[in-house]
Amino acid sequence: MALLIIGSQRTEEFAAAARALNAGLDIRVWPEAGRVEDIRYALAWGPPMGVLKTFPNLELIISVGAGVDHLLKDPELPDVPIVRFVDPDLTSRMVGYLVLHVLFHTRRMCEFLELQRQRKWEYRGEPAMHEVRVGLMGLGVMGEATAKALKPLGFQLRGWSRSQKSIEGVECYAGQENLDAFLAGTDILACTLPLTPETRGIINRDLLRRLSQQGRHPQLPGPVLINAGRGGLQVEADILTALDAGELYAASLDVFETEPLPETSPLWSHPRVIVTPHNAAETTPEAISRYMLRQIRRHQAGEPLENLVDRARGY
Amino acid sequence: MALLIIGSQRTEEFAAAARALNAGLDIRVWPEAGRVEDIRYALAWGPPMGVLKTFPNLELIISVGAGVDHLLKDPELPDVPIVRFVDPDLTSRMVGYLVLHVLFHTRRMCEFLELQRQRKWEYRGEPAMHEVRVGLMGLGVMGEATAKALKPLGFQLRGWSRSQKSIEGVECYAGQENLDAFLAGTDILACTLPLTPETRGIINRDLLRRLSQQGRHPQLPGPVLINAGRGGLQVEADILTALDAGELYAASLDVFETEPLPETSPLWSHPRVIVTPHNAAETTPEAISRYMLRQIRRHQAGEPLENLVDRARGY
Repeated sequence: MALLIIGSQRTEEFAAAARALNAGLDIRVWPEAGRVEDIRYALAWGPPMGVLKTFPNLELIISVGAGVDHLLKDPELPDVPIVRFVDPDLTSRMVGYLVLHVLFHTRRMCEFLELQRQRKWEYRGEPAMHEVRVGLMGLGVMGEATAKALKPLGFQLRGWSRSQKSIEGVECYAGQENLDAFLAGTDILACTLPLTPETRGIINRDLLRRLSQQGRHPQLPGPVLINAGRGGLQVEADILTALDAGELYAASLDVFETEPLPETSPLWSHPRVIVTPHNAAETTPEAISRYMLRQIRRHQAGEPLENLVDRARGY
Repeated sequence: MALLIIGSQRTEEFAAAARALNAGLDIRVWPEAGRVEDIRYALAWGPPMGVLKTFPNLELIISVGAGVDHLLKDPELPDVPIVRFVDPDLTSRMVGYLVLHVLFHTRRMCEFLELQRQRKWEYRGEPAMHEVRVGLMGLGVMGEATAKALKPLGFQLRGWSRSQKSIEGVECYAGQENLDAFLAGTDILACTLPLTPETRGIINRDLLRRLSQQGRHPQLPGPVLINAGRGGLQVEADILTALDAGELYAASLDVFETEPLPETSPLWSHPRVIVTPHNAAETTPEAISRYMLRQIRRHQAGEPLENLVDRARGY
């Protein structure tokens, strides 16, 4: 009975952390898998296509990320349970990232950084927090925790998700048919959607044009996009066009169509774009190992798994 | 019975807002004061020295700012009550500024902005919010509201003030004799102190060296300074020396020894300094006018004034 760690650039770190927590566990780090029949569990982040099916006794896959698009894109993925990584540390980091970037753009910091470069002391006037409407796209664990953190600061909150949610202090919208109404009253769009066939490319020019159509405070010069979900959700050429057409005021992007973001991407140098290296909610090896060991224990004890993925839904 | 508006660059805006709220009020905008005997009230921000004493019937001064150092520096300031401007909108803007900059440096954003300029995709590793100790220097209305906003994000909080305070979830230190202990366990120092003879120049190299002496998380490369109080609190040459000596990791400064910050200041171009133009908590003309009219009404009705300044204490 062995655990395979596969796909991440940090496999050795994860293995070390898991060994520290459970010295007795037989851990193999891909590509040194040993006898394929031994592997019962896999901790995986974007494993090479077709590899996981080569382990005939695989019983459980644990995703290193909260999203599982990196697993589901494998057409030959074995039909075993998959659990997503949901963890208070991961969630808290995501909340910190989103609150930071919501505040950053509310305070027009791209402009103030530019003024600083020019050594110019200039007032711009910024909206008060209660004058800004933040739209949370995705109302899972992360979206809901972000709402909870933004609420006491005074922001007006709305949220959109696939199925109807009910969160205190958040105006909740659901489904394609209510997307327009959600977008029209959203000044800062903060996205934590999972990447599924339905959401791929959803952040395109058409969507960006529909943002903040009514009632935006005059001191926020235009709508803002924050994407901390997945790069596949966004069409980067459309984001750049929308920025340059003045349809979008600014953006903070943590995820990209291709990662690492290619050196040639114009996003790097756009004065109203903040680029971060997919670090909004980086997993610590200790946290992921603790979580993984708990799921393995539950599985062995026949207890229900946490955060089990619905493959049809895609998350 | 007239009101004089004096000293701010925005006197005309304040006058317009006050007129909109009370059309009957006789408002004079300096230097067009008219008959000096008419002036009973003054709304003031750094009036020229010696001017206020020329109004023999002055009964009340309302400060445009939360601090009153700009008034008390006038050695001939008439001996009438002074009220400071304390307002939910002003407080909320200050909270937004401080939470933004605490998160900004927790997430090592000066480094990530530099990496973005270099088109480099690189991980750095950042501390979790609960691994960072924020030290609030100044525990007035603003400091306390900031503690309330930072707490749910998970930060460890401590505070320092002149006299002992007690705030839930904040380790409170008071007086010179406890300053060292406060500083030694502070990773991010967020200052909202008033400027008084005792606090002038308090943020100097000696103080900065004593920050974060024990227990800093290794992913926060050094202590951070955020000053949103008054420029007179800081010695800018010392901040630059501490940054370059590696004693200070980064700084966000909203206030400066000379404002506007001179174009020649090296602070503008330091890669680990964020400069903002004293806009952490900008007053809206409506809010200051509403507050001022309330104080005048209270004064006329013989009711106690709000936020009355103790001249001996300096705030």
